[in-house]
Amino acid sequence: MSKRILPLAAMEKILKQAGADRVSDKAKVALKDVVEELTEKIAVNSVKLAAHAGRKTVKEGDVKLASKQQ
Amino acid sequence: MSKRILPLAAMEKILKQAGADRVSDKAKVALKDVVEELTEKIAVNSVKLAAHAGRKTVKEGDVKLASKQQ
Repeated sequence: MSKRILPLAAMEKILKQAGADRVSDKAKVALKDVVEELTEKIAVNSVKLAAHAGRKTVKEGDVKLASKQQ
Repeated sequence: MSKRILPLAAMEKILKQAGADRVSDKAKVALKDVVEELTEKIAVNSVKLAAHAGRKTVKEGDVKLASKQQ
């Protein structure tokens, strides 16, 4: 679905902050792919929860509940 | 740890792609926080797996295995 949304530089930054000395290019792409997939799942569930509550606007509580249901 | 790494605009885009008509500002922030936390967990685990394999470079396989261990 959304495969060019999160910046690769952010993935490298998070891995470095986690203690990585070096990070391969493929590792950055792998992290981006995994995180985008997780984000999409939470987003889809958030939209369903908003609809379930009779709203067209996705709110904070939808995202928080969705993230716990993964 | 890394609380201003992922762009809020990307969170809105992913929620819109998931079918959201409207997204509250707090919902974008909530999604960013949740996703950053997940990313950090995977990153920390990736670094441990690279070290476990005797490497200083985090590679694709570390990230893939780490993401399955969440």
